[in-house]
Amino acid sequence: MNMATMRLLLFSFMYCCSTALWEVSSASKARHNFKWEVGYVFWSPDCVESAVIGINGQFPGPTIRAKAGDTIVVELKNSLPTEGVVIHWHGIRQFGTPWADGTASISQCAINPDETFVYRFKVDKAGTHMYHGHYGMQRAGGLYGSLIVEVAEGEEEPFHYDGEFNLLLSDWYHQNIFDQMAGLSSKPFRWIGEPQTLLINGRGQYNCSLEAKMNGSSSACDTSSSSCDVEPVVLPVLPMKTYRLRIASITSLASLNLATGNHKMTVVEADGNYVEPFAVDDMDIYSGESYSVLITTDQNPSSNYWISVGVRGRLPKTQPALAILNYQPNSPSMAMSSRPPTTPAWNDYARSRAFSHKIFSRQGAPTPPQNHPSIPHRQIALLGTQTRIDGHIRWSINNISLVLPSTPYLVSMRYGLKGAFGAPTKPTESLPRGYNVSKPPTNPNSTEGGNVYRLRFNATVDVILQNANALADNVSEIHPWHLHGHDFWVLGYGEGLFGKKDAAGFNLKNPPLRNTVVVFPYGWTAIRFVANNPGVWAFHCHIEPHLHMGMGVIFAEGIEHVGKIPDEAVGCGMAGKMWMKPPRVKH
Amino acid sequence: MNMATMRLLLFSFMYCCSTALWEVSSASKARHNFKWEVGYVFWSPDCVESAVIGINGQFPGPTIRAKAGDTIVVELKNSLPTEGVVIHWHGIRQFGTPWADGTASISQCAINPDETFVYRFKVDKAGTHMYHGHYGMQRAGGLYGSLIVEVAEGEEEPFHYDGEFNLLLSDWYHQNIFDQMAGLSSKPFRWIGEPQTLLINGRGQYNCSLEAKMNGSSSACDTSSSSCDVEPVVLPVLPMKTYRLRIASITSLASLNLATGNHKMTVVEADGNYVEPFAVDDMDIYSGESYSVLITTDQNPSSNYWISVGVRGRLPKTQPALAILNYQPNSPSMAMSSRPPTTPAWNDYARSRAFSHKIFSRQGAPTPPQNHPSIPHRQIALLGTQTRIDGHIRWSINNISLVLPSTPYLVSMRYGLKGAFGAPTKPTESLPRGYNVSKPPTNPNSTEGGNVYRLRFNATVDVILQNANALADNVSEIHPWHLHGHDFWVLGYGEGLFGKKDAAGFNLKNPPLRNTVVVFPYGWTAIRFVANNPGVWAFHCHIEPHLHMGMGVIFAEGIEHVGKIPDEAVGCGMAGKMWMKPPRVKH
Repeated sequence: MNMATMRLLLFSFMYCCSTALWEVSSASKARHNFKWEVGYVFWSPDCVESAVIGINGQFPGPTIRAKAGDTIVVELKNSLPTEGVVIHWHGIRQFGTPWADGTASISQCAINPDETFVYRFKVDKAGTHMYHGHYGMQRAGGLYGSLIVEVAEGEEEPFHYDGEFNLLLSDWYHQNIFDQMAGLSSKPFRWIGEPQTLLINGRGQYNCSLEAKMNGSSSACDTSSSSCDVEPVVLPVLPMKTYRLRIASITSLASLNLATGNHKMTVVEADGNYVEPFAVDDMDIYSGESYSVLITTDQNPSSNYWISVGVRGRLPKTQPALAILNYQPNSPSMAMSSRPPTTPAWNDYARSRAFSHKIFSRQGAPTPPQNHPSIPHRQIALLGTQTRIDGHIRWSINNISLVLPSTPYLVSMRYGLKGAFGAPTKPTESLPRGYNVSKPPTNPNSTEGGNVYRLRFNATVDVILQNANALADNVSEIHPWHLHGHDFWVLGYGEGLFGKKDAAGFNLKNPPLRNTVVVFPYGWTAIRFVANNPGVWAFHCHIEPHLHMGMGVIFAEGIEHVGKIPDEAVGCGMAGKMWMKPPRVKH
Repeated sequence: MNMATMRLLLFSFMYCCSTALWEVSSASKARHNFKWEVGYVFWSPDCVESAVIGINGQFPGPTIRAKAGDTIVVELKNSLPTEGVVIHWHGIRQFGTPWADGTASISQCAINPDETFVYRFKVDKAGTHMYHGHYGMQRAGGLYGSLIVEVAEGEEEPFHYDGEFNLLLSDWYHQNIFDQMAGLSSKPFRWIGEPQTLLINGRGQYNCSLEAKMNGSSSACDTSSSSCDVEPVVLPVLPMKTYRLRIASITSLASLNLATGNHKMTVVEADGNYVEPFAVDDMDIYSGESYSVLITTDQNPSSNYWISVGVRGRLPKTQPALAILNYQPNSPSMAMSSRPPTTPAWNDYARSRAFSHKIFSRQGAPTPPQNHPSIPHRQIALLGTQTRIDGHIRWSINNISLVLPSTPYLVSMRYGLKGAFGAPTKPTESLPRGYNVSKPPTNPNSTEGGNVYRLRFNATVDVILQNANALADNVSEIHPWHLHGHDFWVLGYGEGLFGKKDAAGFNLKNPPLRNTVVVFPYGWTAIRFVANNPGVWAFHCHIEPHLHMGMGVIFAEGIEHVGKIPDEAVGCGMAGKMWMKPPRVKH
């Protein structure tokens, strides 16, 4: 293969996963215009067909690719028959455009059927991002895709690679989201259970061993539809090259681990921020997180190799997802000489902690502001517990379970609408003294609420995310928390109840910047951010059913600096009632 | 049994089916206040469980009972997670309250999740009515119930009966409505198929012979869930009494026939209008229709008897629904001595026509205005055809397939919003000369549109509903058409293409008043009404998937007389954009 062919091949790798309509501008800062229509589409992500929420007739939605500094304009038409819709641009901080954050009841009214809303925002920073529905459980219904931001024109990544691949990981349920939501709100409670299938780029094999199938076993795939044959994800690589894998997880529930076997991975990016490179054989990815890793194709080139994605933190009832590292010019369907790498035992939390503890910001990255008398500083401790309200099982933060109001927070707060949400004047922000995190809550009853923390503009805010035992004995779950409108520094992790002395151990030297961070069972995670982005921002567990059950809070900051909210974003709830002024007509 | 016991028993019959919260007022005109919450609820209508749309946690919704002249006030809270909702009060003409008709995009904006809309309207006329969702296919999703209006205080029905029962008939699908809607809009088209079960008062037996079960056959019911055992509907009766059966059909698709065997039925009411009594052994009921029949319990009282409900007009793949006429004091579960009556062959259209032709208004009922030079008169012919738009299969009227706009018609027309819906200036209202109704359409391509017929206020309007062959050879379907805001007189039925001379045969003497009427395959049905109700009214095939596929038109009349539309009904579409006036705030 000569160099020209190789370059062509590499070029095609670079864009092979991008199916979005996009325009290249010769100017350094481009504007990318998209017309998207959200609607149900029949799809068989894993050989089992159902109506999923697609964009422009496809699932997952089209991949957006842009460069740092570019502007994205998505004209989103809602063609769902009866449901509202929004799209959240996960990882984009929305400086100056908080109404474009795409969170129903928080940043905007859901877009009604047959209506169009224009999302217009700047992608200010390179990184591996994603987008997804943020209304009901529409994300779990299939409304998601990748948003890849490359470095600005003329700039370079601080690492070299010859080609890249995009791996958007998700989990898939055969029960439709309406039944799922009804179950979570039911008395007695009905849990959604484990996903049927793990998907890579929207493709998986239900009840089917891809490995056995590739190796010629005829009884490998027990699918009811014999005509269905979801192709595995194939990554065509050249020997002795370096590839960037962009890996993001948009799972509804599952915490994942991705393993590449003998191909060592060097982690270089987390949630759109460079990290100090470190090498691993496998890595955990929680819902809402993204990473870039570099792999070098240094194995015997006469074979192909498996990439495995397995479940972490819950007893797995779902088969690992597999992708194929296809050394060119081998056939992608050739039998493999090695077995798929095994992902770690689901309950090996020590290994998970060890992975998280390896992540530090890359040298030269911004460090968190230190405590200083001249800088307003606030510490908010959020105790996440599983609770009951009127017999319904809920997740609560400081004993309040988040229920979103019909008037978006951004609207009611910007315009000072009184009574638009039932938040306590000042929600609790300290941990109950001596709370026993290793036992079920003594009083598991909680209340519903708005859970709004008003932050002083430009204040430095530390949040302690405190995990605890759930309602059942000896159960504490993983919660990956995602913050909108911000990156935050991860100052540290610990086990048991956070205490004042733990703050002394915070990493203020090179904590990684992220937008999503895991809270381990029975443990705590401390983060810091600067409340410098005028808007109202959700901060919540990224597990879809956990958020649906109330596991989140709202941060509001610099509201007086929020610009003109588009009228289309405000036409619901109390605002819709107060400001709807039809002209007078003769009767 | 003494008279007092019997009266008590009869009294309990009268109210046994009413589960609604209702208040009795000593004043002659009462106001009935309801607080309803619409949400998903797990239910097993036929032993197969799914999340259905319920009201206050029940399916079907609570029965409303009121007296003629009363006011109904329903505070409807939408607790669906992501869907809008409306409720149509089928059979109530909404004089003076066209915004309470409960048709999304026609009379109001759909009520957003977490919002409340107050339906306030007068039930001006006694009759057997119903209510149901009128947005997407939410009716098929379970959003329906009975609305029974008794004669006003001090008035009497023109027939005697000792007790009454309410039989709300429906059909039930195991595929959820989102998959159903996606299929109907898909390319290639996916039809919803025949229902799995027929329900009486929301209860049925899937894949189960109730007859065999009652008679002790152990293998009678092949249900996967052995613990489920939906009780049959039992009508406890005393011998030699007369009972009123109120029968209404709210099916998504199925045309039905109800048979009572040796118990002759005397039909006395149709769609809330008295008819000249006539006796039958079985009767057809199309979706959207209601009847009252009287039966006398004159059979051997030592046995119970079956009532059967079977499918008409389509090759049945659904077992008949059964109810039990339970002669007291027999046990309702005693073995039957007779077999369930057999409903007529599905394709015996002659019998169906004969039944329809027997229905005349009761003596003394209002007769239609005759043609007179001083009365504006208009004839509108509506040819219903199955067509294609961009490869999608649709139903069209005069070659336009109804697609509802995001701004409700009532709002855009009352306020003169230009461009809010894409209706042709004046849609066609005559039949194509020489159209061959017995062949598929020569050019099956049609267009989408608003299909609004503006009627001169108080004009007499004749509508000819013309049926034709569908896209496939030798197929012409039944279409029961329902008019909102009006009763109409059924002037006549005919076969083939309607011609001018057919008008000479119109029954102007005693045509029945109805709000729903069937159009037989390859035939036509003529109706007349007076456009005397200011508002915008849907007129459509009551088969849920047919309406979803565009089979309807809009009548607008006396718009300038429409009063103040509640602001809550206007906050969507163009109106929402134009009239949303948030106050100015400092930036």
